[in-house]
Amino acid sequence: VRRLSHYLRALEALGDEGLALASSEVLAERAGTTSAQVRKDLSIFGSFGRRGLGYEVPSLRGEIERILGLDRRWPVALVGAGRIGSALFAYPSFRERGFDICAIFDEDPAKVGCRWEGVEIRPASDLERHIRRSGIEMAILAVPAPAARTVGRVLVDAGVRAILNFAPVQLQLPDSVVVNDVNLAMEVEALSFTLSHRDRE
Amino acid sequence: VRRLSHYLRALEALGDEGLALASSEVLAERAGTTSAQVRKDLSIFGSFGRRGLGYEVPSLRGEIERILGLDRRWPVALVGAGRIGSALFAYPSFRERGFDICAIFDEDPAKVGCRWEGVEIRPASDLERHIRRSGIEMAILAVPAPAARTVGRVLVDAGVRAILNFAPVQLQLPDSVVVNDVNLAMEVEALSFTLSHRDRE
Repeated sequence: VRRLSHYLRALEALGDEGLALASSEVLAERAGTTSAQVRKDLSIFGSFGRRGLGYEVPSLRGEIERILGLDRRWPVALVGAGRIGSALFAYPSFRERGFDICAIFDEDPAKVGCRWEGVEIRPASDLERHIRRSGIEMAILAVPAPAARTVGRVLVDAGVRAILNFAPVQLQLPDSVVVNDVNLAMEVEALSFTLSHRDRE
Repeated sequence: VRRLSHYLRALEALGDEGLALASSEVLAERAGTTSAQVRKDLSIFGSFGRRGLGYEVPSLRGEIERILGLDRRWPVALVGAGRIGSALFAYPSFRERGFDICAIFDEDPAKVGCRWEGVEIRPASDLERHIRRSGIEMAILAVPAPAARTVGRVLVDAGVRAILNFAPVQLQLPDSVVVNDVNLAMEVEALSFTLSHRDRE
């Protein structure tokens, strides 16, 4: 799936440059992989290439958008209106890709009632009712670690089926719910691990 | 490496609960893996467990911190003082884990000269000289996509060997440099991919 996202970005860049056809080699170079991998990955979803010509940039782009579920808009709930939450709300790529943060929740009374670009910050106590009523299936969890597991369960009870989790906690949720953990501290730990081991070699 | 980070968090939680010994089963449950995996992972770095007793929580915690390079402090440069940059600067886990953002760079003249908790925002033109002089080896790249590749090269020329990259671009850098990409749009795309395919099943 990550590689599909990379191919999509490569196709967008190629399209911007005015290219109508792209070989698997060109795509591979832009996406940081091999041409064999590109052909293999894309063949899983259909036969998009034309032998000897390569891939048609606009149509393959459309196909990958469809495969990634980007051919529609997704309403998203943001839980936690702190620094991480506000950075995520302002992150332009979410909206560009069809993810609309249309509900924000926080338990801080000073924040509740504020509006971010027209979206009202609601109290945490409204979470379950509001999400259930609006049919939101995707949520971004940007609350402190101690609250994350409980909030995760409330989200799932309300009908959420996919969570992007920024809390440094393993959520314990049913297998039917897809959770993607973004743990920024772990990302830097992976860097310090590598640097430390190079230093010792 | 990610699993080591999870074990560390599990050991910290167990330590907070006052446990002195932990079985591989307990560690596995907390870290979201299997006890066989725990034993296998830890055996790579030495023999830490005591047969029939389990692992000593404080000493294993210390060992994993050492393995992850967390037994020292790392000076870190933050490039890009926008919303993502400011959220990362305020992210408490970085400092807790020994990562000190001690230099901030931005090309916006309105930001240059400001201080975030005492750390001055410097002009992008100072990047190479300042990083070389201060010997910083780790950087967080939070600049817009068009600038990211160039800034990445400047960082590496200045001596940076590890980059946490938030720009939605594949940096093209020598293999000796370790780059961890955090692409938030791709993380949500992985969610929409899963939800779309479940819907179609």
